[in-house]
Amino acid sequence: MLSVVFDGQMRVEPDYPRPRRGEGESLIRVTLAGICNTDLEIAAGYMGFRGVPGHEFVGVVQESDDPSLHGQRVVGEINCGCGRCPDCFAGLERHCPQRSVLGILGRDGVFAEYTVLPDRNLHLVPSELEDVAAVFVEPVAAAFEILEQVHLLPTSRVIVLGDGKLGLLIAQVLAMAGCELVLLGHHLPKLEIARGLGIDARLSEQAPSARADVVVECTGSARGLAQAISLVRPRGTLVLKTTVTDKLELDLAPLVIDEITVVGSRCGPFAPALRALARGEIQVGPFVTEQHDLADAARAFDLARQPEALKVLLRP
Amino acid sequence: MLSVVFDGQMRVEPDYPRPRRGEGESLIRVTLAGICNTDLEIAAGYMGFRGVPGHEFVGVVQESDDPSLHGQRVVGEINCGCGRCPDCFAGLERHCPQRSVLGILGRDGVFAEYTVLPDRNLHLVPSELEDVAAVFVEPVAAAFEILEQVHLLPTSRVIVLGDGKLGLLIAQVLAMAGCELVLLGHHLPKLEIARGLGIDARLSEQAPSARADVVVECTGSARGLAQAISLVRPRGTLVLKTTVTDKLELDLAPLVIDEITVVGSRCGPFAPALRALARGEIQVGPFVTEQHDLADAARAFDLARQPEALKVLLRP
Repeated sequence: MLSVVFDGQMRVEPDYPRPRRGEGESLIRVTLAGICNTDLEIAAGYMGFRGVPGHEFVGVVQESDDPSLHGQRVVGEINCGCGRCPDCFAGLERHCPQRSVLGILGRDGVFAEYTVLPDRNLHLVPSELEDVAAVFVEPVAAAFEILEQVHLLPTSRVIVLGDGKLGLLIAQVLAMAGCELVLLGHHLPKLEIARGLGIDARLSEQAPSARADVVVECTGSARGLAQAISLVRPRGTLVLKTTVTDKLELDLAPLVIDEITVVGSRCGPFAPALRALARGEIQVGPFVTEQHDLADAARAFDLARQPEALKVLLRP
Repeated sequence: MLSVVFDGQMRVEPDYPRPRRGEGESLIRVTLAGICNTDLEIAAGYMGFRGVPGHEFVGVVQESDDPSLHGQRVVGEINCGCGRCPDCFAGLERHCPQRSVLGILGRDGVFAEYTVLPDRNLHLVPSELEDVAAVFVEPVAAAFEILEQVHLLPTSRVIVLGDGKLGLLIAQVLAMAGCELVLLGHHLPKLEIARGLGIDARLSEQAPSARADVVVECTGSARGLAQAISLVRPRGTLVLKTTVTDKLELDLAPLVIDEITVVGSRCGPFAPALRALARGEIQVGPFVTEQHDLADAARAFDLARQPEALKVLLRP
């Protein structure tokens, strides 16, 4: 099958073997996939991944032991736990030490004609949700993870730092909590998109003078992280939403002196993301920069790397 | 009055002016004071502090507007808020942006014959609590701050990293929550003291193989912090209990991937510390390395700097 493969170099492979499903797994024909920053980092060597990258997708079940899944349009949670360890029994499959992660760790991903996931990872996509929106379920779920971890009050003052695609999704999801929210960024066109969605979006230099109850760091840069710390009030919460591949030189004393809580946040629950997208509470239309055929993956990756780019989609 | 003064150099000054109390403040004759690691850092330039250092003390009220305080034996909370800002109104005087901090920030401390604190900062010492125990109330309160911030379950698995005086106090306080607790350190005599208090104390190389629900970092070293991160389970909590003056080069990706919560923790509530010390739930006797006259402060500081030292006390 046609596939993107990373083996130190990213290339398009016309005859990559179609993945074989195991017991309890489904073979899925990928209909649309999204390029995430993690994919760009993988292309730069992150996680030492080898194989088919990609983890944001929507597709149709082609083969499954579960007849009710045949022909269904699905999205899929990307962490595959062993199902036998204490973490898995505690419902923390996403943290199973033996896990594989779709297109990120020990499991081929979705930049291909076909992919495989355990049946229990799959979620049916409601008919009213088009592929071009359903492909955003994974990053919207990652945004919902913040609400799983931190109790945002309707009166909380919240700052989202970073106007990339994840920041724009997070701002919309957190705004659902009714909080007073400001998005800070450096890219005027992206801030304009956020304003079009009713978000108070500003240049980073125009941060509110009062420090916030909750700050979400989505820049992935050392500079952004330092600014994020300075924006949290004493006893407030800083959410780290992006992995930074560089080691950072950090002064952690302010965390102790101001008794700040730092919450690392990764993958999230799909069900609320599907509900919010289906009800139109989260808008993703303005984020799609371009769609490319899978054969054009090299060009799509180049485009996704541009500072002005938002979501670039791949059609297998 | 006799006083320790830091003005770039630490020296003993025989005729330092006696502090003058303002409205709502008490003048306190210091009867015993403790040297904390923060004092050693101040002697190395931390916080740019100038004046009389020292913040752990017990004393007797000499002058006060409040007649009920006259002649009372007291300990005192060290943060003095402005009493007029939103933080102070919210009960967060310890985080008032205008605050002074006894012997640390903009306020002379307790390594002197007399000190001054607002009446509202003072707590009466129960008669059954001797000075040599009461002088530990401030660091024991800092240990209780962890229980204010983190809900330790009776079934939690907890690791305290660092066998210094703060680590030994924290281990005792957290053990009160009924949790399964291991103290890790590098100093055999200190680990022996901990074992004498019924604590499972081990060399750092003998850390439990299962990662802990909660890890408390009390080493203040970059190496300790890196080990602390590696000891927390996914979705677990890391408490930062010491300010580190160095900037640290840190890989924060594990915090995001394992969704770890980091909680900065500083000063704590005095009332539970007084209760626990008065009821004998916290033992401090084994921690007193030596008592010195205030005039001997230089020797006392030298002693406190030794790796084997625990608490060194000063008698004004």
